[in-house]
Amino acid sequence: MNLLDAITSPDDVKSLSLDELGELSDEVRQLLIDKVSATGGHLGPNLGVVELTIALHHVFESPREPLIFDTSHQSYVHKVLTGRASQFDTLRKKGGLSGYTSRSESEHDWTESSHASAALSYADGLAKAKELAGAGEDRVVAVVGDGALTGGMCWEALNNIAAGERNVVIVVNDNGRSYSPTIGGFARNLTRLRDQLAQIRMQRSYDEVMETGKKTLKSMGWVGERTFEALRAIKEGVKYQVVPSEMFPELGMKYIGPVEGHDLKALLQAFSYARSHDGPIIVHVVTEKGHGFAPAVNHVADQMHSTGVIDPITGEALTASVPGWTSVFSEELLKAAHQRSDIVAITAAMAGPTGLTPFAEQFPERFFDVGIAEQHAVTSAAGMALGGLHPVVAIYATFLNRAFDQLLMDAGLLSQPVTLVLDRSGVTGSDGASHNGVWDLAIASIVPGIRIAAPRDPARLREEFNEAIAHGTGPTVVRFPKGDIGTDVDAVERLPGGTDILFRPAGEAADDELEILLVAVGSFAENAVVMAENVAGDGLRVTVVDPRWVIPIDPVLIAMAAGSDMVVVYEDGIVRGGVGSALAEALASAEVDTPLRQLAFPDVFPLHGSRTEILREYGLDPASGEAQLREWAESLRD
Amino acid sequence: MNLLDAITSPDDVKSLSLDELGELSDEVRQLLIDKVSATGGHLGPNLGVVELTIALHHVFESPREPLIFDTSHQSYVHKVLTGRASQFDTLRKKGGLSGYTSRSESEHDWTESSHASAALSYADGLAKAKELAGAGEDRVVAVVGDGALTGGMCWEALNNIAAGERNVVIVVNDNGRSYSPTIGGFARNLTRLRDQLAQIRMQRSYDEVMETGKKTLKSMGWVGERTFEALRAIKEGVKYQVVPSEMFPELGMKYIGPVEGHDLKALLQAFSYARSHDGPIIVHVVTEKGHGFAPAVNHVADQMHSTGVIDPITGEALTASVPGWTSVFSEELLKAAHQRSDIVAITAAMAGPTGLTPFAEQFPERFFDVGIAEQHAVTSAAGMALGGLHPVVAIYATFLNRAFDQLLMDAGLLSQPVTLVLDRSGVTGSDGASHNGVWDLAIASIVPGIRIAAPRDPARLREEFNEAIAHGTGPTVVRFPKGDIGTDVDAVERLPGGTDILFRPAGEAADDELEILLVAVGSFAENAVVMAENVAGDGLRVTVVDPRWVIPIDPVLIAMAAGSDMVVVYEDGIVRGGVGSALAEALASAEVDTPLRQLAFPDVFPLHGSRTEILREYGLDPASGEAQLREWAESLRD
Repeated sequence: MNLLDAITSPDDVKSLSLDELGELSDEVRQLLIDKVSATGGHLGPNLGVVELTIALHHVFESPREPLIFDTSHQSYVHKVLTGRASQFDTLRKKGGLSGYTSRSESEHDWTESSHASAALSYADGLAKAKELAGAGEDRVVAVVGDGALTGGMCWEALNNIAAGERNVVIVVNDNGRSYSPTIGGFARNLTRLRDQLAQIRMQRSYDEVMETGKKTLKSMGWVGERTFEALRAIKEGVKYQVVPSEMFPELGMKYIGPVEGHDLKALLQAFSYARSHDGPIIVHVVTEKGHGFAPAVNHVADQMHSTGVIDPITGEALTASVPGWTSVFSEELLKAAHQRSDIVAITAAMAGPTGLTPFAEQFPERFFDVGIAEQHAVTSAAGMALGGLHPVVAIYATFLNRAFDQLLMDAGLLSQPVTLVLDRSGVTGSDGASHNGVWDLAIASIVPGIRIAAPRDPARLREEFNEAIAHGTGPTVVRFPKGDIGTDVDAVERLPGGTDILFRPAGEAADDELEILLVAVGSFAENAVVMAENVAGDGLRVTVVDPRWVIPIDPVLIAMAAGSDMVVVYEDGIVRGGVGSALAEALASAEVDTPLRQLAFPDVFPLHGSRTEILREYGLDPASGEAQLREWAESLRD
Repeated sequence: MNLLDAITSPDDVKSLSLDELGELSDEVRQLLIDKVSATGGHLGPNLGVVELTIALHHVFESPREPLIFDTSHQSYVHKVLTGRASQFDTLRKKGGLSGYTSRSESEHDWTESSHASAALSYADGLAKAKELAGAGEDRVVAVVGDGALTGGMCWEALNNIAAGERNVVIVVNDNGRSYSPTIGGFARNLTRLRDQLAQIRMQRSYDEVMETGKKTLKSMGWVGERTFEALRAIKEGVKYQVVPSEMFPELGMKYIGPVEGHDLKALLQAFSYARSHDGPIIVHVVTEKGHGFAPAVNHVADQMHSTGVIDPITGEALTASVPGWTSVFSEELLKAAHQRSDIVAITAAMAGPTGLTPFAEQFPERFFDVGIAEQHAVTSAAGMALGGLHPVVAIYATFLNRAFDQLLMDAGLLSQPVTLVLDRSGVTGSDGASHNGVWDLAIASIVPGIRIAAPRDPARLREEFNEAIAHGTGPTVVRFPKGDIGTDVDAVERLPGGTDILFRPAGEAADDELEILLVAVGSFAENAVVMAENVAGDGLRVTVVDPRWVIPIDPVLIAMAAGSDMVVVYEDGIVRGGVGSALAEALASAEVDTPLRQLAFPDVFPLHGSRTEILREYGLDPASGEAQLREWAESLRD
């Protein structure tokens, strides 16, 4: 790591020669393979942008000229070049390096959210601010994947950027994939351009052309500025405009490309040209996900988009993957699809991680990948429901945020039977602030007539998913967390409304004992039972219930609360507007004034760390929960 | 109204000749002018689509071939043609005709929401359902305005529609405006096409060309099917492909147009061709907003996009407009802009209705209309804030739904000082279900670190807006209702945390009197004081407070609640996750178990009617609120 050791800021990259930049690329690539193999992380995407990122830092003046990485899971190389190479052992660990850009880590990091398609909007805003500040000559650079361009936000931003004349450089990092291959008419267009890159590569080299051009112009008596202009025209003509995209010019935006994304010279030329161009410009760079690491390039599913701990030579997984919540859902969906021809499935570019691949393989005509386009996912699902189908939209809980209006107005207002399956709900852990699915219960429960299930175990996931797709009026939601699903938590009794009693204290209550109703949401059920067992005999009689369908509130909970001294709601979501809050509203409406307490996330963005660490940090692990329960009871008794 | 009287369904339109369709257009236009003048409504947009809608119903087989109207405020003509002409006296009145499509009104109405840019997604879903049902030959038609095409949802849908080969007909109703003139690179492209329409009109007529073509082909010995194909090519060549848009073909979609939107013959030809075309197709129709009614056409601001009661001849307003909440905000923004150069303003295509026009006129370089693109509005604002500005984003409360993720992830997570001014919050009235701004408090309050103000009167709006833009960390929201702002409601006392006491019961409490804390949110303050005064002396001592900043909860409310027998929160929003709910959470967290009640909207979509009627329907008018208060107190006393 001769060169890399000396890189402490982008300035150090600027002083390197082309050959040295090549060496640096090799060193960065090796560092990524070594480090990310050991920690897990977004290996494939970062291997694909080594040269691209080095070239950006060589040409642009970060942080004065902001580099905005869309989603920013591809910002590892940027982190390496901005003084954070030595911290990669802590990647995605609590207190360590974030897996995304992070403003607290570096002045070179401008944004934080991992939600796709937002970079161009940030860039538009920053460019507007620069212009008003009299710094409009500074370029603002946004790096966006071809996959993210399927998101509507990009279109809104492109439309605005194109309408202005500000210096926004949009680098399209085109690897033909978002998570899975990018879909849609636009992707087809990019594919066509990519195919033509092969032809460009066969042309005479740029230098040759320039040389010929110079000679020709000289023979015509052209010199000086005029020559420069003509050469630029030739350069553009040969290097870039062989395969003009019609789309961006239609928007009024300059387009250059496609540029070979692993050719440093080509990248430097393209970015230098883009930096010299006045007004918005798109640089279309073709990269290969996983480039330079054969196990990633050859990884069929997703070129190691995001990996766990792997062998740095063979790429083989070193941590066994357990069948989790996703695979149980995946199986159940498949069963349902065999029985009912009206079941269709929709993904927003994540068929694999949401468990839809088996369905897609067996029912290709009933499977729809809409791209990174949650808005369209939900509203087109509502359209399908209007047409008599029962769509199952499988997305990560955090991405439901993008489709709140569509859930409310397009599915909810029309009472259409659309089932949303929200994977990675609650705290997800190492992906950090913007990947946590802690807002889903609060926003989904706003929708009039919606029904929300939070299964606690494999049996309930199967059961509640089937109940969801059996429901013919209005949207339904089934939400579950990331990872290991564990084993079944059996009920002591199922009440007529569907609520399960999971634990009932033995014997009769003594006079001085407090009766507590503990409402466990989803996967917290097991913890809740442990808490109830532990406090039994200490003056607390805790009855644990799992409402299974947490919205609407089962009336039996109101009756049970009325007969209790305290109600505690324990959920893997936020306090603000969560299930506890909904139960409080129902109790108030019924004029039942039993004290209620919420064991849930406070008003913060939980940062990255393991799920266990984060639950402990916020007092939601069983031990903290139990202590809190005792404290509340004690205080109530006083 | 000779012809119109006989129109009870689209079948009756199909049997008319071209001349009769022209007469029908005149009759429909006159009906609209007469009726909408008397009720108010979206006059301009509907006058622009008279011929377009008649032609659609003449060509397509509604409801088997669904006509989806985007936003659907332009569906009046459709309503007239589907048996609802006689109901126009009840337009937008309680129990009367909705101002949008409404599934309960007619089988010809497929959707309901007035939120723009969703129609293409519905159409994609319906077309997919048709295909799976073996009815893929049926066309699904979406009518979308050029303004709505600036919304990202349309892009997501276009990308998906283009990727398929289903029979989706996208009719772009291009009047060059959303509310105000459509902005962005895409609009420039449409404008260029529109300009070329003038040239097309000067060409030999379509019939002439067809005649010449036939003769030419005959002389070449072509007959039968081959002739038909060739004619179709000529037809396309001359009529449609003179000015091909490059954009849609790039997506892989057939494009025809521009079509003269008030020429029935041209429309019938274009739609017939579109119906015969296999696969997705875009028909670009150029219309004039307000067509046929000079006062609308000449109405500079917005061609009478949405009007109150007017004179049906002169178009003059017959109801005086009162300076409302919007104009007070408008003035205050202008003042602030004169004092601070970092204040910029952003609208999503609604500068006029949100009060930004004076700012736009005085500070054009600091004013940004981003199109119907709330997502971009908020994230580009976050980008501007990153660049040192303080953006003010003025949108209708209901449209914040579209930017929830952006508010949370792009402004909130980065703690950027973006001020959202939410106009038309709470119940708006005659626009119905999807225009009510009753969700804003619930979703905005989810954002960690956000501050939300609900001013009660002109003085507080000025004050709280200035506090909002003085706040340098994290997003702030100022929300206020539609209409008349009324006069100031003075405080008895301002507490140190900023909460105002509006009413305090006189004298000392007797032993059997209940102490009630009534928390009034925003414009409900005046009603709350009336309620408190009315119940005084009846055993109830009601203290009315206005927290001014409703989120975060002022700790003084917790202390005051602890000293009360009951807390009532009275707000113009939903119970689910509203301010009352947030206060309940804060009380629970502080282990203050004073009974709390919420006077707010239940779990429904309030339908259209006057604001007063709707408040009464849901028990939120002062009289109902007072009765409820007495009932709760009585029940608590028992």
